[in-house]
Amino acid sequence: MTYCAALRLDEGLVFAADTRTNAGIDNVATFRKLHHWCSAGDRVLVLLTAGNLSITQSVVSLLNEQIEASAATQAPSLMSVPSLYRAARLVGDAVREVRRVDGPALEAGHLGFSASCLLGGQIGTEPPSLFQIYPEGNFIEANEDTAFLQIGEHKYGKPILDRVARPSMGLGEAAKLLLLSFDSTLRSNLSVGMPIDLLIYARDSLDIRHERRIGQDDEYFRYLASAWSNALREAFGKIEEFET
Amino acid sequence: MTYCAALRLDEGLVFAADTRTNAGIDNVATFRKLHHWCSAGDRVLVLLTAGNLSITQSVVSLLNEQIEASAATQAPSLMSVPSLYRAARLVGDAVREVRRVDGPALEAGHLGFSASCLLGGQIGTEPPSLFQIYPEGNFIEANEDTAFLQIGEHKYGKPILDRVARPSMGLGEAAKLLLLSFDSTLRSNLSVGMPIDLLIYARDSLDIRHERRIGQDDEYFRYLASAWSNALREAFGKIEEFET
Repeated sequence: MTYCAALRLDEGLVFAADTRTNAGIDNVATFRKLHHWCSAGDRVLVLLTAGNLSITQSVVSLLNEQIEASAATQAPSLMSVPSLYRAARLVGDAVREVRRVDGPALEAGHLGFSASCLLGGQIGTEPPSLFQIYPEGNFIEANEDTAFLQIGEHKYGKPILDRVARPSMGLGEAAKLLLLSFDSTLRSNLSVGMPIDLLIYARDSLDIRHERRIGQDDEYFRYLASAWSNALREAFGKIEEFET
Repeated sequence: MTYCAALRLDEGLVFAADTRTNAGIDNVATFRKLHHWCSAGDRVLVLLTAGNLSITQSVVSLLNEQIEASAATQAPSLMSVPSLYRAARLVGDAVREVRRVDGPALEAGHLGFSASCLLGGQIGTEPPSLFQIYPEGNFIEANEDTAFLQIGEHKYGKPILDRVARPSMGLGEAAKLLLLSFDSTLRSNLSVGMPIDLLIYARDSLDIRHERRIGQDDEYFRYLASAWSNALREAFGKIEEFET
């Protein structure tokens, strides 16, 4: 499994993805699930992927092929489309193309077709935006009522997001929140694993300035996990017991 | 869906189950999923059920039929078996009997066969114990390394149990913890709903003295939910932000 989440805030976007991939529980590996494309001053696009790794890697390869081909063909690509909406359409089309190629064989092997993506970023003078693309290639956009979107193993880390996330959060506070959501997931589900890729996009910067891979030995993450555990236990202790 | 959880503690057992049942999202009803049998001084058995309501109700009906018939037939029933292990076997057998009767038609309708149970209690001089029975009728028993078991929509409420549950907790503290686990689940998943049935079993009491249905207007639950929200937000605020 995988856990990816992103926050859409007044000040920008924050993305995080784990890196664990497993084919059975005895074949565990580390793969990047956070991908980005940037043309400083023009656009930043960030893609988080969950699902069958062969499918999501093919989606990224198709998107990169389009970028390389577009100089010659003038066909649209992530680096040329005029809006995030059009970029989400391209990602959806790439998912559908992979399904056309690999879907029947996967289904014949009873593996199903699993691929979900989060796509966020900013193009030119558009406001930053965030989309979730489904395995069928259709998608939704986060709006002012939806401060966050998640894909993959999302349930363990949802309660803290439900309680705390709000569009007015600062970027540093939001990164803290996302990492706490990952901490809860990592503790409860072995199929989600470190390191975590974290990317913070500041509105209107049109550049990627804060990207970090957070491993087991990351000082801030260790502080965060231990401070949160202690704070939770302390908070729990302060609440009156149920009277028996 | 459903959420049921139980804690196995040095001082006894604590059980909780929600009561929401839905057939589609436009057909929502309240059904009891916490069932118990008690012969004061001899035994207490508590069964929590999740899955297809027609299946789990049939399981309970079969178990009750056995109890009624056993006076005449001397066949084993929940009220006569000498151990919780044997009681879990009876529940597993009842699940298999319902599968024999209803399974083929359910599977022909592509509905699958979903039924999970938690069975806990105490018989005579045995220590209290807690079992999880799977849809196939096999089961596991909680031991000293497993302070809790969950069935149904268990992921949202697991992080808090993972962090706080331990066998040495008092019963009132454990009831508080279970209710917090339910609070997280209720906030994140509409298919789990109030009221919550809560049952606290004190070791060696061989009687049910604390059973309570906790509804929307329950004063303690409202205090708990609001105190926990405030405590979490306060704890979140105290942790240093991620440096951007």
